[in-house]
Amino acid sequence: MSIKIGIVGYGNLGRGIECSIKQNEDMELVAVFTRRNPDTVKILHKNIPVYHIDNILEFKDKIDVLILCGGSATDLPVQTPELAKNFTVIDSFDTHAKIPEHFANVDAAAKLGSNVAVISCGWDPGMFSLNRLYASAVLPSGKDYTFWGKGVSQGHSDAIRRIDGVLDAKQYTIPVDAALNAVRSGETPEFTTREKHLRECFVVAEEGADKAKIEEEIKTMPNYFADYNTVVHFISLEELRKNHSGIPHGGFVIRSGKTGWENENTHVIEYSLKLDSNPEFTSSVIVAYARAAYKLKKEGATGCKTVFDIPPAYLSAKTPQELYKEML
Amino acid sequence: MSIKIGIVGYGNLGRGIECSIKQNEDMELVAVFTRRNPDTVKILHKNIPVYHIDNILEFKDKIDVLILCGGSATDLPVQTPELAKNFTVIDSFDTHAKIPEHFANVDAAAKLGSNVAVISCGWDPGMFSLNRLYASAVLPSGKDYTFWGKGVSQGHSDAIRRIDGVLDAKQYTIPVDAALNAVRSGETPEFTTREKHLRECFVVAEEGADKAKIEEEIKTMPNYFADYNTVVHFISLEELRKNHSGIPHGGFVIRSGKTGWENENTHVIEYSLKLDSNPEFTSSVIVAYARAAYKLKKEGATGCKTVFDIPPAYLSAKTPQELYKEML
Repeated sequence: MSIKIGIVGYGNLGRGIECSIKQNEDMELVAVFTRRNPDTVKILHKNIPVYHIDNILEFKDKIDVLILCGGSATDLPVQTPELAKNFTVIDSFDTHAKIPEHFANVDAAAKLGSNVAVISCGWDPGMFSLNRLYASAVLPSGKDYTFWGKGVSQGHSDAIRRIDGVLDAKQYTIPVDAALNAVRSGETPEFTTREKHLRECFVVAEEGADKAKIEEEIKTMPNYFADYNTVVHFISLEELRKNHSGIPHGGFVIRSGKTGWENENTHVIEYSLKLDSNPEFTSSVIVAYARAAYKLKKEGATGCKTVFDIPPAYLSAKTPQELYKEML
Repeated sequence: MSIKIGIVGYGNLGRGIECSIKQNEDMELVAVFTRRNPDTVKILHKNIPVYHIDNILEFKDKIDVLILCGGSATDLPVQTPELAKNFTVIDSFDTHAKIPEHFANVDAAAKLGSNVAVISCGWDPGMFSLNRLYASAVLPSGKDYTFWGKGVSQGHSDAIRRIDGVLDAKQYTIPVDAALNAVRSGETPEFTTREKHLRECFVVAEEGADKAKIEEEIKTMPNYFADYNTVVHFISLEELRKNHSGIPHGGFVIRSGKTGWENENTHVIEYSLKLDSNPEFTSSVIVAYARAAYKLKKEGATGCKTVFDIPPAYLSAKTPQELYKEML
């Protein structure tokens, strides 16, 4: 008996979820739901239906976990609580500052429907959060650092594309090696924004555009680039497509801390990810937590949960006894 | 109101626990229990009593969590189930192959006493196990590798010391860089024992001892050294004391896996530890899980638990709401 999954929203993340389900033998994709005309949405599976989101309540008893693949800005704040009234749901809400508010809304809705809802699942928030928590609990006398990259920042790439004279662009966030190495050595420095990450931009300009002006506009853009050292490369559209079409990402969570009667010993805990595809890895994390949501719901749990609240064993298709034997 | 801790057994680990409790403001050391004559056991705190283990039942209502610091070979298989009948306990049982048996014994005893017992806590088993589990759940189509070191292996050092003509010795286990780098690149090679780790030995020989014979005896010792590339250095006792008196350790858990419709994307998850003091870091992990054991017991949980069964938030002194806000 497999876990029946529905996907809500079919972009990069929805497609990643579809791929990930194929790798998990205890799971089965039942349907994809979209706000678009379902006839226009082509998914990878030939034999799995796509429905309009308006029909979703018909699936209330046919789906164990709904995976919500919308955006954090406007989709999830509405969709997650709304759907949690009728389904066990999971989302990847990633606006860190608004997590407490989202949690409260989703928790109330999920309890109303006696459902489980897992929010803010992926790698940051998600696996990185877990590593910040474990490391800080284990080394209370210490400090942790999160570095992102090397990877594509969609928001920063979009910001460049909105500049006059820019045809297309891709922006990479890159951790500064000197900062990484200082933290790895067990030091606990205070960094400025500029000292932690640099930004590298590959820009395709329109013919005849003023490249110097574009570069200046990028480098001085408040919030996005002004606080960073930014490198701008102008390249051809062909080169952009050939060398910069992927969406890799990754990063590091490093905590160093002291132990001993006089804090005489130093320890460094480092967790890192090197990802070919940001949305596919995020999807893989979400699918593992969808399994956990299913198990929690079967046990009678209700309300909102995060990666902090879920016992690790719930993520695995193996039984606890198998895990003790094989992995502990 | 702080969590009242008792320590059973006072060697390197017990001393590490004592130091770690000092760093956690919500905890308080009540007493140390020993099989030795308590008058001969000097602990770091001046004002905390040491009792003979025979008196421990008098503390049944005065201690929230007993931390058991005995060895896995003979102490813990007896002590953990015995004490779990009367106390919430935690141990660092690390004989991987015997964990299922230990779990079953401790589970039965803890349930008999309506207590919580956490076993096999530390970094391997412990934090490394968690990382194997999380990584394998997230990347089901992949393979993981555990490397240990650079660090001191107590068992191997002891084995060298038993050789005729050896006064003292220290053995370091070192991961082979080529193997680490192959795994980090996303390859999933099969390694022989020799290809993953090498062993470096610092040996103090008795005056006039046959060094060539000692070296040969080390390198051909079955189980301990014969399957490894082993380097032997003969040094003076002064040099051993000066440069090799620490007990550093560490290691790496690396999993690479594929995602995508045709498994076209590769991801690498790496967790590493660089530890100045193996027993103090192990202690720090145990103390965080002692907090979790306390919370579980307060909720009415009973029976044996491992790091796989405990929600990460239980390790922290912060509330879940604080954690969502600050770390998620």
